[in-house]
Formats: sequence, structure tokens, C-alpha cells
Amino acid sequence: MAVVRRLPRYYRYLGELLDEGVTKISSKELSNLMKVTASQIRQDLNNFGGFGQQGYGYNVEHLYLEIGKILGLNKTNNMILIGVGNLGQALANYPAFRKRGFNLVGIFDKNPKLIGLQIGGLEVLDTDILEEFVNEYKIDIAILTIPKNGTLEIAKNLANWGIKGFWNFSPIDLFIPNVQVENVNLSQSLMTLAYQIHNKNSSDF
Amino acid sequence: MAVVRRLPRYYRYLGELLDEGVTKISSKELSNLMKVTASQIRQDLNNFGGFGQQGYGYNVEHLYLEIGKILGLNKTNNMILIGVGNLGQALANYPAFRKRGFNLVGIFDKNPKLIGLQIGGLEVLDTDILEEFVNEYKIDIAILTIPKNGTLEIAKNLANWGIKGFWNFSPIDLFIPNVQVENVNLSQSLMTLAYQIHNKNSSDF
Repeated sequence: MAVVRRLPRYYRYLGELLDEGVTKISSKELSNLMKVTASQIRQDLNNFGGFGQQGYGYNVEHLYLEIGKILGLNKTNNMILIGVGNLGQALANYPAFRKRGFNLVGIFDKNPKLIGLQIGGLEVLDTDILEEFVNEYKIDIAILTIPKNGTLEIAKNLANWGIKGFWNFSPIDLFIPNVQVENVNLSQSLMTLAYQIHNKNSSDF
Repeated sequence: MAVVRRLPRYYRYLGELLDEGVTKISSKELSNLMKVTASQIRQDLNNFGGFGQQGYGYNVEHLYLEIGKILGLNKTNNMILIGVGNLGQALANYPAFRKRGFNLVGIFDKNPKLIGLQIGGLEVLDTDILEEFVNEYKIDIAILTIPKNGTLEIAKNLANWGIKGFWNFSPIDLFIPNVQVENVNLSQSLMTLAYQIHNKNSSDF
């Protein structure tokens, strides 16, 4: 799993190199840039087939595209977002997703004051029509930005209707068979930072 | 570091148990709840002094308060937020921080259209007065929700002015001596989910 967590980071750096017109790079140069050891880089990329050539380094564009394929970014990932509060609105307006094949096709809330509003180019729909919507469009991912209380029930329903993955911002741990869950727990993240600040000596863990 | 990442999760579960009126819990019960092995729990908590009593289990309130102290949540952490875009506004409106001692005291932007607006009960201030503000208030943490380009420069300045930690939402890796950085890279998180969906067999990594 640790390797998988590093792949998006490789992908990001390679994309930036491409934008800068860099066509090839050695594991040593990439190592300096990313502050990861060169041997770690070689080992990580060998796990996925090894794209480098001895004495030449990596072809940036090739490696970028290959890692993109491994991550499933060459396919379109259809997404819905549930919970159009502050965070939900921010995510619905996030432009960076679309260019990587993440296609937000529907946003939902149960609050009548929000239903019908336009956010990020989409109309807020009533959660009552979720099942119908998920059946009609091929939805891969549900972004959950709802309060803790309703999350488990809605997630179970979505799983039954065929959703493959949850990007979960709700402060609850979802354990649902056959569905992938990526939790983003902002409070936990901030508490981790607080720990590091108040226990500076352990920052080199 | 892995233990430290788990502490906020213990803290969250213990807080929920407290809210439900639970006064003591065994490592086995906590294990069932959190889907972590009981031995992992005992080992984690031993790392920080071991709060359990053989045959009794853990006193929920005591453990909750002790973990809170370890995380530095018994102190006030003064924060500023820089970059009042969609995500910055969402974070400025997030109520869960305050109750854990995270005190957002200033929000900043350089966009004249945003300066002066009220968001989450605070007035958006001009980034021009950042140095003055950081010197006057004792700021521990800066939340960075600014575009990639300006981030490194502003982070270096803030570090010089005495900021101890960055909660960094900008898609750039900050390496700044003596300052703690907690990165929240939403794009990388979403790509990790895409990988898991498209490579389901590796979900048990």
C-alpha cells in the first residue's frame, strides 16, 4: 500500500517535468527533486514493471503515461458528490479533478434550501433520486461530504447500487465489503500536526 | 510516525465513547470497534506510557484526556489561514477545529475583492500585513490554501516569522528546516482511490 500511496506523487512530479519540457530524467535527479532515495525510486518503479533503461534514465512522458494507466487515470471515473455544505461546495468547484479523468456528474443534498442551486456548473439534486441516478449513469465514485450521522446508511445503499469507491470526508470509518474507501479525515490530520509541533524531537520518526 | 497517525483515531473513538457515557473499555472491545488488533492497541498505548490496568481495561475519560495531552490539544493552537478560495472558505467555516483548541485568529488573501469580507466570523485581511499580524499574535499553525506558485515563498517567510507548523493543502511539497508540515494532497488522495478501484485484487495490500 505504501508504494501505491507514492505513485500519485511520482505522477505529479512527472507531470510537472513534462510541463517544463523535460524529456528524460535519471533516478538520481528524480531523487533530488522528490527527496526520496534513488534506490527507493528504482525499487518502487520495478514493482510496476520497471520503466528505466540502464545509463539512460527514465523517459518522462512514457513513465507519466504508464503510471497514469496503473492509477486508472486513462479511464473516466464518474463521480457523484453527496452533501453540498462548505466542503462539498469547495470540492464541487475544484477544477483539478476533471483534467485527470475524474468526471463529477451529479451533486446531491437533502436540504430543500440547497436543492436546485447551481454549484460548479451542476444543479444540486435531491438525495431521494440517488438510486435512479446511480443506475442511469455509471457512477464509480461517491464523494461523501455529509455529517457523520447519515453516512453509514447512505454508504450501504450506494454500495448496493453498485458504487465502487468512496472518497469519504465524513469523520466515520466505513467498513463495507467489496467497496474501496479512501478516508480524508481533516481533524485527524490537524491533530497529527499538533502532535508534531508539541513533540518536536519526534519529528524525525 | 505510524503510531502518531493512529493516536488521533484513538482520540476520536474515545471521545465518541465518552459522549455515549461509556466509562471503561477493554482493549478487546476497542479492537472490535476500531478494527485494529487488541495487541496493536496495547502496543500503541504502551508506547505512550500504557494507561490500561490488567483485568480492568482502560478508563475512557483518563485515556481520552491523556491522548489529548500527548497530541497537544490541552494547549491552544493559534492558527491563521492564507488563501480564501473555495477550500479556504470551507476550512474557515469548519466548526470542529475550535472545540479541540485550534483557534483560527486570522484569514488572509491578496485578492482585493476578498479583503474585507466576513468569512466564518473573521474579516479577510490583506497578506501585506502578515508579518505584523504573526508577530502580534502568537501564531503556531498556518493553513495554506493558496495556489502552488506562491506557496514556497510565503511558507519561507512565515517560517522566518516563527510559524511552527504548516497545514498544507497546496499541491507542492514543502521542505523547510525546523517547521513541521502536514500535507493534505486531495488530488493524490483521489488518485489512490482510483488505483484501488481499478486494481481491486491489490486492495488487501
